[in-house]
Amino acid sequence: MKVIKSTKQMQSACLALKKSGQTIGFIPTMGALHHGHLSLIRKARQENDLVAVSIFVNPRQFGPREDLKKYPRPRAEDLALCRKSAVDLVFNPDKSGLYPQNFKTNVYVEELSQLLCGLSRPEHFRGVTTVVAKLFNLIQPDSAYFGQKDAQQAVIIKRMAEDLNFPVKIKVLPIVRENDGLAMSSRNIYLNKNQRQDALVLNKALGLARLLIAGGQKDSAKIMAKMRVLIGKKKTAKIDYLAIVDMIDLKPVKKIRKHCLVALAVKIGKTRLIDNIII
Amino acid sequence: MKVIKSTKQMQSACLALKKSGQTIGFIPTMGALHHGHLSLIRKARQENDLVAVSIFVNPRQFGPREDLKKYPRPRAEDLALCRKSAVDLVFNPDKSGLYPQNFKTNVYVEELSQLLCGLSRPEHFRGVTTVVAKLFNLIQPDSAYFGQKDAQQAVIIKRMAEDLNFPVKIKVLPIVRENDGLAMSSRNIYLNKNQRQDALVLNKALGLARLLIAGGQKDSAKIMAKMRVLIGKKKTAKIDYLAIVDMIDLKPVKKIRKHCLVALAVKIGKTRLIDNIII
Repeated sequence: MKVIKSTKQMQSACLALKKSGQTIGFIPTMGALHHGHLSLIRKARQENDLVAVSIFVNPRQFGPREDLKKYPRPRAEDLALCRKSAVDLVFNPDKSGLYPQNFKTNVYVEELSQLLCGLSRPEHFRGVTTVVAKLFNLIQPDSAYFGQKDAQQAVIIKRMAEDLNFPVKIKVLPIVRENDGLAMSSRNIYLNKNQRQDALVLNKALGLARLLIAGGQKDSAKIMAKMRVLIGKKKTAKIDYLAIVDMIDLKPVKKIRKHCLVALAVKIGKTRLIDNIII
Repeated sequence: MKVIKSTKQMQSACLALKKSGQTIGFIPTMGALHHGHLSLIRKARQENDLVAVSIFVNPRQFGPREDLKKYPRPRAEDLALCRKSAVDLVFNPDKSGLYPQNFKTNVYVEELSQLLCGLSRPEHFRGVTTVVAKLFNLIQPDSAYFGQKDAQQAVIIKRMAEDLNFPVKIKVLPIVRENDGLAMSSRNIYLNKNQRQDALVLNKALGLARLLIAGGQKDSAKIMAKMRVLIGKKKTAKIDYLAIVDMIDLKPVKKIRKHCLVALAVKIGKTRLIDNIII
């Protein structure tokens, strides 16, 4: 496994591999790898000649009052997990390598970036699409792998890749959960014991929605009202948003139908968690 | 010479050519080709295995009151010129091919896009950078060729390519002029006989600036004042902007030094023309 810090070296290595006719599967990450990431790596391993993982805590996708500084950075463990997962290339640039002094360019997906998580994190998705566009150009992947946990991110990245004609297949894999149902996230380590227990309410609320829908409930407002009541029972939980939206344009869906996304963001103490299910 | 309309076909043709190890030189154009474009094609022909030209009047780089509708579209002549210049691939998509219904993504270079031409054309460069990013992904060029006539565009495209890590060398070639000094432009055909004569004042004003600088004048304000007087003598001419700026950040330069750009935009009747010299 090669670990490369320099953007120039990474790009020339990847261009050379492409020229030799090999396919590259790519997983962009911010490190603090968990079983969700590993499921993406496993899939990429199956589908490509080579697997590249980037590890970069991208400052441009954090808001001014967010957790950029304290975001976990367990590099030794991350690299060990990559090695164990038979990753070929790890790209681990520093900030100045990806954002030199005169950096001025943004990639922005209109509308989609402003909804749901975009309401409380107005610059987040611009940071994501910009860094992913850069990484696509640097790494030249045939396929790139994203987790369904970041449902809105997946929708936005697909839109960007199609709009800008990136020759990259975007693959979105299912959420990986802890045994008790909590969606895996690098931010779960922020939770203390009580909060960790309360955090189960996200998955439980989604389970309730699924149950109501299975029972024939079609009224999104009624479903969300019951989810709110359930979440409201947890003292450490504060809803950021709760939404039932179309899977493509992320616009609210009043009456349940196919291709809906039930998505929520809830603050448990100071930790903002997200989760979702597809109907 | 192959002429391709479909974006999918163009991309798969170019990806296949890249895989076979051939280098691609690319010239993005809006058609109405003149000797300026042909100088770019000639250079690309010398430096690459294959030459690709795109012909697309990009609606997203025209403002609401600009000349999108009347912009010249002499396709038969354009294709004949490409054939004569030994172009290999012409990409001539229609609007819906490049901008499908749900299109939502923009590429934007902050600051640089708002100065000079950006003052009177606030959305112009966003349209340019977005379409060029798309074309780079579709055509996968090794080198792309731009004219120095669009000086600000060249600066912005270089910035974008570097910021987004496009593996494309950006080459900027000198302005090609008519015998009487008028910079070649697809918009020159809008000029009537009197206007065509008055349009020479752009190049003459730049010539005056060069003369003053050669004579030791270092004060940008004084140079621009004299240029203004000269241009003011033409009744059909109305200055949009006149500026002496740094070649990299496009910020005003008060005292003449190396790597300055003297740039101007002047309306001759209803036709907006631009021109510039590098000091």
